[in-house]
Amino acid sequence: MKTDIQIAQEAIMKPIKEVAKKAGIAPEELELYGNYKAKLSYELMNRVKSHSNGKLVLVTATNPTPAGEGKTTVTVGLGQALCKLGQNAIIALREPSLGPCMGIKGGAAGGGYSQVVPMEDINLHFTGDIHAMSAANNLLAAMIDNHIHQGNSLNIDVRTITWKRCVDMNDRALREIVVGLGGPMNGVPRQDGFMITVASEIMAILCLATDLDDLKQKISQIIIGYNMKGEPVTAGDLKAEGAMTTLLKDAIKPNLVQTLENTPVIMHGGPFANIAHGCNSIIATKLALKLADIVVTEAGFGADLGAEKFFDIKCRKANLKPDAVVLVTTIRALKYNGGIQKADLQNENVEALKEGMSNLEKHIENLQLYGVPVVVTLNAFVTDTEAEIAAVEAACKAKGCHFALANVWEKGGEGGIALAEELLKVLDTEPSKFKTLYDDNMSIEDKIKCIATSIYGADQVVFEPKAKKELAKINSLGLEYLPVCMAKNQYSLSDDAALLGRPKAFTTTIREIRISAGAGFIVALTGNVMTMPGLPKKPAAEQIDINSKGVVTGLF
Amino acid sequence: MKTDIQIAQEAIMKPIKEVAKKAGIAPEELELYGNYKAKLSYELMNRVKSHSNGKLVLVTATNPTPAGEGKTTVTVGLGQALCKLGQNAIIALREPSLGPCMGIKGGAAGGGYSQVVPMEDINLHFTGDIHAMSAANNLLAAMIDNHIHQGNSLNIDVRTITWKRCVDMNDRALREIVVGLGGPMNGVPRQDGFMITVASEIMAILCLATDLDDLKQKISQIIIGYNMKGEPVTAGDLKAEGAMTTLLKDAIKPNLVQTLENTPVIMHGGPFANIAHGCNSIIATKLALKLADIVVTEAGFGADLGAEKFFDIKCRKANLKPDAVVLVTTIRALKYNGGIQKADLQNENVEALKEGMSNLEKHIENLQLYGVPVVVTLNAFVTDTEAEIAAVEAACKAKGCHFALANVWEKGGEGGIALAEELLKVLDTEPSKFKTLYDDNMSIEDKIKCIATSIYGADQVVFEPKAKKELAKINSLGLEYLPVCMAKNQYSLSDDAALLGRPKAFTTTIREIRISAGAGFIVALTGNVMTMPGLPKKPAAEQIDINSKGVVTGLF
Repeated sequence: MKTDIQIAQEAIMKPIKEVAKKAGIAPEELELYGNYKAKLSYELMNRVKSHSNGKLVLVTATNPTPAGEGKTTVTVGLGQALCKLGQNAIIALREPSLGPCMGIKGGAAGGGYSQVVPMEDINLHFTGDIHAMSAANNLLAAMIDNHIHQGNSLNIDVRTITWKRCVDMNDRALREIVVGLGGPMNGVPRQDGFMITVASEIMAILCLATDLDDLKQKISQIIIGYNMKGEPVTAGDLKAEGAMTTLLKDAIKPNLVQTLENTPVIMHGGPFANIAHGCNSIIATKLALKLADIVVTEAGFGADLGAEKFFDIKCRKANLKPDAVVLVTTIRALKYNGGIQKADLQNENVEALKEGMSNLEKHIENLQLYGVPVVVTLNAFVTDTEAEIAAVEAACKAKGCHFALANVWEKGGEGGIALAEELLKVLDTEPSKFKTLYDDNMSIEDKIKCIATSIYGADQVVFEPKAKKELAKINSLGLEYLPVCMAKNQYSLSDDAALLGRPKAFTTTIREIRISAGAGFIVALTGNVMTMPGLPKKPAAEQIDINSKGVVTGLF
Repeated sequence: MKTDIQIAQEAIMKPIKEVAKKAGIAPEELELYGNYKAKLSYELMNRVKSHSNGKLVLVTATNPTPAGEGKTTVTVGLGQALCKLGQNAIIALREPSLGPCMGIKGGAAGGGYSQVVPMEDINLHFTGDIHAMSAANNLLAAMIDNHIHQGNSLNIDVRTITWKRCVDMNDRALREIVVGLGGPMNGVPRQDGFMITVASEIMAILCLATDLDDLKQKISQIIIGYNMKGEPVTAGDLKAEGAMTTLLKDAIKPNLVQTLENTPVIMHGGPFANIAHGCNSIIATKLALKLADIVVTEAGFGADLGAEKFFDIKCRKANLKPDAVVLVTTIRALKYNGGIQKADLQNENVEALKEGMSNLEKHIENLQLYGVPVVVTLNAFVTDTEAEIAAVEAACKAKGCHFALANVWEKGGEGGIALAEELLKVLDTEPSKFKTLYDDNMSIEDKIKCIATSIYGADQVVFEPKAKKELAKINSLGLEYLPVCMAKNQYSLSDDAALLGRPKAFTTTIREIRISAGAGFIVALTGNVMTMPGLPKKPAAEQIDINSKGVVTGLF
């Protein structure tokens, strides 16, 4: 069987100018990065501002399992299928982080015959967006320590600095560090740490900004820590917002690439789905909606995190109205949720499947709370049996939602035709009655309770003392109006990763609350959230190689 | 008076495709980064391999002073002037580092009417080369700490790790840090530090590599530290070279940009001129020589560091034969070398000038040691007087070298015509008899002594105990055959920055010696070499801004 990178390297890509043309973009509205990648210009964004919007379709999934769900693969396959059916569709995706490619995880550009290309470039530096974000982030960090070193006229309390440095690398040794050692010439010693760039507030800000001015405004509001009086110190106080925005002047422009079948893909921004909201940029989604009749996009992790944040943070802030949701699952993932071990997933087991379907059912119920029509799709594996498929279909029908099979990994767009046709029927006949889950004017505490009880199914929510203290601070800063960004493990609806299926009678514990005043949300953490991954015992990097002609191998 | 960025923003740039065409490069041999920047493809490098070489002209300078010499400005102006005279000339330059732009220094793309454009892009992320180098560097660092964390099967002695992390930012707080804190999940605590990326061995390696295979080979030879037996541990031992080279697959391709007068500029690589060799990449210079009849390039700092390393490291390794040297100085710089304070430099003072000319004369003598014809040029300032100019000209003639005035900051190529004509005469009539200063088979100790006595004018060379120990290690590792990269303050020929002019009867002290086994040179340090700059009290970043249309201000 061919690997993803082999399939990707055999792709017959069209020059990105041609892909752009198909999407109604003129050559002079492109900034080429080689022949197969381009940035979309400010001019294009201005020109299409008055166009009417296409339909917006979110692809989400049941809770992730080691069995794999293939959410990105389905997103890409569905977009390809829509184009095969003659639709003017664009796919909007997050751009992958480089760090994890060197660790354990494969690339984040789909798989099999539903991939985004050029795969190597996308998974490596792409058009430099994430490096630019690292630079903007680290400029602010350097300006903070420099300010303190040069006399600290803002009276920053070094113990309260929350702004961390970042790098797009899996590097656990940088999680907790001490900086400023070596004497007075090297600044003031203090505890610090690095995050992976995609976990930085800069990434969240860029993805929630609507234009350069808004980006600068959001950056200036970043709270980097507090002064000795306990008042917030912002990036604006340090006069950093102009230079930081300048460093992001190209990163803010969405990137255009294509699928294996030459479907246009706007790939832009990739915030973590725990500490941040896990969706591609608002600028990219809005631009795609102006260019296409149907935009297929996705959100990180399962629907409890990804879809909830897509609706309650991104759609709220951007005033977007999704028209349909595609909920991806697999027979294997459902059986895993039903208690079957990974090694035994290839055996038919309708009982375990039904047990695991409780997870699917809860996600369907959750999505229906938002008033958006739901299409469940089974991402096919060769081991799926007819009885199993029939059981899932029956459960979906019972919940009043649509169902379609997808076989896009193996067959590309052709394998997504059934799903695309079902989706088109839904878009034609079932108008969305989208509403967010909670109102702006609820307290942060109530917003958190609302998400935990309605979406996760918790009985009660407990706030630890540290979290309570932060709630009081948020109140005193007048930031209660912000939406909440939940940071929870992605494997369970509860905050215990081991509780699969549909856990009941559990408590969600809020251990810590952080303010992302620049991004404009409050992060509620239900446990330790890893913001800097490590490399495994045998890093993927050891296998990656390039030959004298520049052909890359071992990236997957 | 207009600022550099104002002049740059008023430039009428040609699409880079047209600039390329003028240089004999076909559109399909370009990888565009927007309309005004491009990478030059592997295919181009292959196609022109059999072309004959153009002439190679190095621009260097007297020792830097706060008065400013304008070496890059003259390099750009000379290239423009040659094109005005109908010559097929290409300029080969280093690409600037982003970090210092946020600190105190202006951009590194020339000045006035002799600049390389697009100025903002070049001074910010450009085509991402330096970010890619940071990623390759930091991948190796992460793999080192991960190897130790995962059991340390190579038995690395953590106390001996010399490989540092890097970032393209002026951030003094990162000079000396402790990593791996916070418990066993975060790796093994140890002392570490960050360099600015341009000071990293990766930058030096990229600039000395001849192709992808050579790059990979050099990377695999990097010594990251030693095992408990004292044997070197390399990047190859960690299996890091394939992924690191993959991360550099685009960074290795030279970048094409243009001057304000549309002269083609190949800008590629920018190693520090102390800890590394301070010249643009070998790949860029060699490619330029295949494309142009005359290639004008420069080297960092004054001729004692920049030209010496250009000849003894770069030309030696790349088998290049420079045809002429342009030695840039200013009346102001010479008077400063003659003991005049910066505030008084605008007053005519032929006596002080003559005193300071000892610096110029020593550099002329040094350059003549290499058998290459020398043209001295005075980069004009409005305060220069006829008597002063005449004194410099007479001194040059007395030394048997050529002389020409240049006024390229104010007048662009037009102001460089006299210099260009003098240079053309030299290239036509005086064949270069280039030879390196020392032979490969001399010991490292003798090579250092040779440079210090012949070039700096030292009476004697003292090796401190630490340096002696390293010399023994180099001998035991069989690395005596490598050239030496001197790390010395740039302001004086001696290792005391305060001794201007032509210091005599001094000792050069070698305090430390480092092995850059990947780059293939031995670094001899005569003092503390700063490899991570800091920000000043009022960082330039505070002034940098961007408006809603994307126009950048405050970058200079």
